Amino acid sequence: MKDSLSRFKQIEKELTILHGFMALMSWDRATLMPKNAIHQRADQMAYLSLLAHQRKTSKEILRCVDILTKPAHLKQLSKIERLSVLKFKKEITKERKLPAEHIEKFSKLIPESEAAWEKAKAKSNFSIFRPYLEKCVQLSKQSAAYIDPKMHPYDVFLDDFEEGMTVVKLKKIFAELKAGLIEIITHIKKSNSFKRQKNVLKDLDFPIDDQDVISEEVMDMILEDEGRSVIAESVHPFTDSISADDVRITTAFREKDPMFSFTSTAHESGHALYELGFSRKLENTILFDAPSTGLHESQSRFWENHIFKSYDFWRFFYPHYQKVFGKALSRMKLGDFFKQMNQVRESKIRIEADEVTYCLHVIIRFELEVELFEGSLKVKDLPKAWNQKYKEYLGVSPRNDSEGVLQDTHWSGALFGYFPTYALGTMYSAMIYNQMRKDIKGFDGRVRKGDFSAIRKWLKKNVHEIGSTMLADDVIKRCCGRGLTATDYLEYLKGKYYGIYDK
Amino acid sequence: MKDSLSRFKQIEKELTILHGFMALMSWDRATLMPKNAIHQRADQMAYLSLLAHQRKTSKEILRCVDILTKPAHLKQLSKIERLSVLKFKKEITKERKLPAEHIEKFSKLIPESEAAWEKAKAKSNFSIFRPYLEKCVQLSKQSAAYIDPKMHPYDVFLDDFEEGMTVVKLKKIFAELKAGLIEIITHIKKSNSFKRQKNVLKDLDFPIDDQDVISEEVMDMILEDEGRSVIAESVHPFTDSISADDVRITTAFREKDPMFSFTSTAHESGHALYELGFSRKLENTILFDAPSTGLHESQSRFWENHIFKSYDFWRFFYPHYQKVFGKALSRMKLGDFFKQMNQVRESKIRIEADEVTYCLHVIIRFELEVELFEGSLKVKDLPKAWNQKYKEYLGVSPRNDSEGVLQDTHWSGALFGYFPTYALGTMYSAMIYNQMRKDIKGFDGRVRKGDFSAIRKWLKKNVHEIGSTMLADDVIKRCCGRGLTATDYLEYLKGKYYGIYDK
Repeated sequence: MKDSLSRFKQIEKELTILHGFMALMSWDRATLMPKNAIHQRADQMAYLSLLAHQRKTSKEILRCVDILTKPAHLKQLSKIERLSVLKFKKEITKERKLPAEHIEKFSKLIPESEAAWEKAKAKSNFSIFRPYLEKCVQLSKQSAAYIDPKMHPYDVFLDDFEEGMTVVKLKKIFAELKAGLIEIITHIKKSNSFKRQKNVLKDLDFPIDDQDVISEEVMDMILEDEGRSVIAESVHPFTDSISADDVRITTAFREKDPMFSFTSTAHESGHALYELGFSRKLENTILFDAPSTGLHESQSRFWENHIFKSYDFWRFFYPHYQKVFGKALSRMKLGDFFKQMNQVRESKIRIEADEVTYCLHVIIRFELEVELFEGSLKVKDLPKAWNQKYKEYLGVSPRNDSEGVLQDTHWSGALFGYFPTYALGTMYSAMIYNQMRKDIKGFDGRVRKGDFSAIRKWLKKNVHEIGSTMLADDVIKRCCGRGLTATDYLEYLKGKYYGIYDK
Repeated sequence: MKDSLSRFKQIEKELTILHGFMALMSWDRATLMPKNAIHQRADQMAYLSLLAHQRKTSKEILRCVDILTKPAHLKQLSKIERLSVLKFKKEITKERKLPAEHIEKFSKLIPESEAAWEKAKAKSNFSIFRPYLEKCVQLSKQSAAYIDPKMHPYDVFLDDFEEGMTVVKLKKIFAELKAGLIEIITHIKKSNSFKRQKNVLKDLDFPIDDQDVISEEVMDMILEDEGRSVIAESVHPFTDSISADDVRITTAFREKDPMFSFTSTAHESGHALYELGFSRKLENTILFDAPSTGLHESQSRFWENHIFKSYDFWRFFYPHYQKVFGKALSRMKLGDFFKQMNQVRESKIRIEADEVTYCLHVIIRFELEVELFEGSLKVKDLPKAWNQKYKEYLGVSPRNDSEGVLQDTHWSGALFGYFPTYALGTMYSAMIYNQMRKDIKGFDGRVRKGDFSAIRKWLKKNVHEIGSTMLADDVIKRCCGRGLTATDYLEYLKGKYYGIYDK
């Protein structure tokens, strides 16, 4: 057994290193790689995936895991060892249920499907993408059936991102969230402040170089300068962990919208702080990770929304911000700026959505995905169903497929069951925020001074350190004293937005 | 046999990919990596080395190579296949002669030795480094004895960098080179222009941002913008190949010396152009590489010295250069600038040396290395021997160990036999330059117009495409009609520098 354990640990460490290579390859590809290196890079990454897959599912490691999971042996393991072995076993059991031909079919389909989606989006023509999406849905159904033919296929996908979550649970919580959000949006839309509002920021000039300065400052405020992270520019912002001491983020700049880089950097820095905060006791194990995508998202949403879009923060930061963008903001008062950056708007594009409308975008995608996998919706009818839901929930009508059903890349990569995690993270973040305000004395005053040390400490202790030694829901129960609820988020929105849209 | 061949090719491709990972890791470490990630990165790179070593020396690949190198089978292979298999066999035969314990001892020593060298250099105290250097010399001697106890140990090292080169050959060519260089230096030092010369550039202001603009232009002039390379900043400039379409360089900036970044970028771009020019028929084989370090160096030296330090080039480039550094150069005439940037100076530091003195630095190191390995010099006597040779050949006396015997990093990494390749590259480059001027009509006129397309074409056909399907000396014989000689370089120096130091 001792040999099995030491070999198991060795392979866990190897997998950590291989994942680090993959992360560096991805980060580099999106930021600095010369553009014509793309095909070679695809080869490199495919090889790396294969290598990691081989290491993870080798007969040798299977044998080790079988030995270690015998009840008599499990008892002798430390808690971390036991949890690692069990999590590992669960993952490889799943992976090994997929026949090699099926995996191969899938890995051939994805690049084609992604290319078709890009083309379809550029031409705003869903029919180009449709046959590929049909295949993605079909192969995903097959995957689910291979893994567990008795489970709801969507529950199989959910298990990858949010262990323990099910369609039944999601439907219930999303019903509450949806009703609450629609109520808030209706209230806002009736107000005169909404009817009279204008987007002033888009007519001002926010030089990229100045946005870059602010972006670095945002990252430093969240992460403190520990020499364990860097930031670069890419088309879509993301976070990548190359090693326990090397977590990188990217941001993106828009000349007419300084909030895009600002919130992107805050969002990704929140993810990075999480990755940098796992207990070092978990290093080189499978537990050195978040327990779920939703909980990960809660850490980005927390900083992005609850701190960096709060009035308290801007009381502290605005004088400096105003100075950096001297010309553009010299005449704009704090209160006006705060309302500008928190405007609730006509909302067609998820990634541009405000705090209030955002989760409705997510719920729409969730509902459509479930219908696709339950068979009550056909891919060919997707654009129509999409537009109907947008009309019904958000009161908007996309002008074309490109700003409608084709706006997100997820489906082209057969990434189903992922969207809900955005809303889960948002709800978790509001619960964490509420609890933190109770636990930390003088919370608001600290934010007004830009002092985040107590917040970082709270997050490290209550969320980050834990890694994936617990399920997400248990992490939340442990720190907030109750399980997932939409109430905190809805109350938070009312508190903030009924103030902004007050008459 | 067919199975062995296809497996061999597959492993060659895997090794190419693994080398690409290693290159990305190194490039990233020197340019963008957060500073506290250094230990994790060392782990990652050690794992990668091990993986590559295992792949390269596995029993499976040995068996394939044994089968493929049977005379009857060799005949059936294509030329590229045959050369690949033979080169591969040579390399693994060498690698496998070193016992695992020996390799382990060495790989433990190197980081310690490098750390000791850094400390010794910072404190300018050779005695801190001495015991480590002694071990490096001793273990290197052992390596040589394992590989071939009958060969001169230095010839064993040379074989890694410059296949076919020997101490005997080097002594002969370096004797000619040394005599010629000392003659030229003596001539220069006697001239009034030398006695009266002042370094004016160091008192002017060359903002890094402007140097950066020039640096990008230099790279683009040499490589053309093909989207297959990028440049970044690092402490020591270098070139790294991540894939056939991804060759990166770095440069370094010095506020008071704009020529440092200028020549560094030209030098590294020359290396990069070579790496980008190997025939695609050789891709994913062991032949997709230069046949020698010296020939590689010829490609960087060619652009750095023969083109970017030539009067013809500066006739073309100076008006623009002068404009970029407006203030600093507004009153300096082309002729004066050209003399400034080509000043022959008191020369103590190799990497700062001018074209005339540079190779003497190399010859000194070569002579000392040979004495160390022949046993006629002890490590403890190295500083004294160093200083004597500097006095004798270059007429200078280092003020301390830091600017003397400790200036280069090579020996701390047990990199013996490498220095000569700098001088070999320099001599090759002059031969190539001479031949090219005969082969390309209106050569000087093209350079005066900044038109390098014919030069690139000549290099691709005569050097780059060949990869390592030939030995370096054969590449030179093929394009220049004769083997290595010091004459071309000495004549080139006389032509240029007797003009600059004319009275």
